[in-house]
Amino acid sequence: MIALPAPYLLFLGDATEADYAKTAFGLRDWARDLCVGEFACADATVTTGLPRLTPCEAYARGARSLVIGVANVGGVLKQNWIPSLLAALEAGLDLVSGMHGRLNESRELKATAERLGRRLIDIRQPPPGIPVGTGRKRSGKRLLTVGTDCALGKKYTALALTAAFRRRSINADFRASGQTGIIIAGSGLPMDAVVSDFEAGAAEILSPDAPADHWDVIEGQGSLFHPAYAAVSLGLLHGSQPDVIVLCHEPGRTHLLGYPDFPTPSLAEAIALNLKLGALTNPAIRCGGLSFNTQALSVAEAQAVMDGASQILGLPVADPMRGGEAFERLVDACLDS
Amino acid sequence: MIALPAPYLLFLGDATEADYAKTAFGLRDWARDLCVGEFACADATVTTGLPRLTPCEAYARGARSLVIGVANVGGVLKQNWIPSLLAALEAGLDLVSGMHGRLNESRELKATAERLGRRLIDIRQPPPGIPVGTGRKRSGKRLLTVGTDCALGKKYTALALTAAFRRRSINADFRASGQTGIIIAGSGLPMDAVVSDFEAGAAEILSPDAPADHWDVIEGQGSLFHPAYAAVSLGLLHGSQPDVIVLCHEPGRTHLLGYPDFPTPSLAEAIALNLKLGALTNPAIRCGGLSFNTQALSVAEAQAVMDGASQILGLPVADPMRGGEAFERLVDACLDS
Repeated sequence: MIALPAPYLLFLGDATEADYAKTAFGLRDWARDLCVGEFACADATVTTGLPRLTPCEAYARGARSLVIGVANVGGVLKQNWIPSLLAALEAGLDLVSGMHGRLNESRELKATAERLGRRLIDIRQPPPGIPVGTGRKRSGKRLLTVGTDCALGKKYTALALTAAFRRRSINADFRASGQTGIIIAGSGLPMDAVVSDFEAGAAEILSPDAPADHWDVIEGQGSLFHPAYAAVSLGLLHGSQPDVIVLCHEPGRTHLLGYPDFPTPSLAEAIALNLKLGALTNPAIRCGGLSFNTQALSVAEAQAVMDGASQILGLPVADPMRGGEAFERLVDACLDS
Repeated sequence: MIALPAPYLLFLGDATEADYAKTAFGLRDWARDLCVGEFACADATVTTGLPRLTPCEAYARGARSLVIGVANVGGVLKQNWIPSLLAALEAGLDLVSGMHGRLNESRELKATAERLGRRLIDIRQPPPGIPVGTGRKRSGKRLLTVGTDCALGKKYTALALTAAFRRRSINADFRASGQTGIIIAGSGLPMDAVVSDFEAGAAEILSPDAPADHWDVIEGQGSLFHPAYAAVSLGLLHGSQPDVIVLCHEPGRTHLLGYPDFPTPSLAEAIALNLKLGALTNPAIRCGGLSFNTQALSVAEAQAVMDGASQILGLPVADPMRGGEAFERLVDACLDS
């Protein structure tokens, strides 16, 4: 299991699009106590709003690791980040990364870390010995957040639902399936880094047998409609054998992020396909409702778009970041069995 | 790219079920010139019908490597195989394995191979640098064999269709996606060993841009209806962007191999789901017909079951191992555009 040196300095690389800095935003929103500030290359334009600190300033304020809070297509460690990362090591910080391209594969980082006695922690490395899926029904209840695309709130929704379940005195655990979730939760499995043959098996391990009234709220990945990542989504869906799915969507996103030739599916289509494929390992699967990411909309616009979708689909629709009665109705519907 | 020392001695381990020795049978049927014989543990009951030879006898007849021709659930190298594998190294043979459990992870094998100057070749190791999928439409034509389950003829069907296309003077390549196929073809990508995030990207590399009249005939993997392996099947389907699928099935197989709680899907359902999901990356996808594995049936039984399915589904159905007019009709339908 993973144990990270806290608190963190968040590294934003050279990001100019907020969508690629979702790790940093997730940490700011869900583990703010652990974040002393942010640090970025000169050409970055994205900010989390946390104090901008040099690695030395961050160390002086207590930071013990620099967390790479930015992703890019393919998860490659960019060469122009290396000077910043070396500076962090020199300042006394360990490095934490959830990218596919491993810190330990950079000779420069490895040599400097060894010289200074610093650690390079790659949290995207799955543990050894993951078995193949069995399809066996496990005890306890499970909710999986699924999506019309990547990067639109599946992790946020799972975290918010876990917190809401707990407020109602329900025994619930957030199950992290991606790097940010794992940093926030301190445990989990990096599902997109698991070898395909073991994808469903990894998902089975992520939410093990539990008491009958216990809920695992599982962070979804990707989308069944994504030309690159649908395999991850399907393995996670099959292995999670969810009783309830919540479909996550960003109103106004007409095409998949970075894939202009691929329109986002309709909500009805996305619900139907997830239920159809999920029924293989849990014939009782149902949709609890929808979670909309309405950060780009005004309160009135968000309300209108959520009410409209709710009426058309006959399901509760809420934005967990806005909360309110709509969100409580979504929680009700998820728990209603 | 892979270059294996030929000819081969086929190792059957302690297999007592022919379904688990599909690598050996595939080599016997499709690369018989390369196989000098077979070798097995004392308690094995499966045979390929090739001469049973000791490693020393095989070496004397020209063999230069022992190929592990048997698989098991999870692809683990079994401890009771080690003495046989050590004997092969001592006899002068290199070892070739397509299992998940790597030859290079066995200390005993590694030490002995190093001492003797022998090679341990793990062909299930994907090459580095596989990109994420793009969803971009590539030039040339593609056929993918898909299945109602594992181990029922997807590789055989792809090999037979490639041979049939070539007999008609069509420029066609067999694209291997599994260990046996890679040994037969001498190249390919072990799709089930690819990290999930790159599964569709790997499939894109496997059948690159080609002339407009060229056919890639791609070996399918697993089944969309398999609780452990559907992720592999979906990534391969999306990345292959096939123009034509051929559904492979074994009549009489009522449940997935090794998964008694999972019934095999109906043929109509399996065709529909593959077409629905495949349409994401190729909206023009169509089903060319079905390939039945009728090895357990008499000629009359096979004919009856294939004719019946063909009438119900309105598609050609053939057993490539039996060939004949039915198979030529399947080839016609695949090429008809």
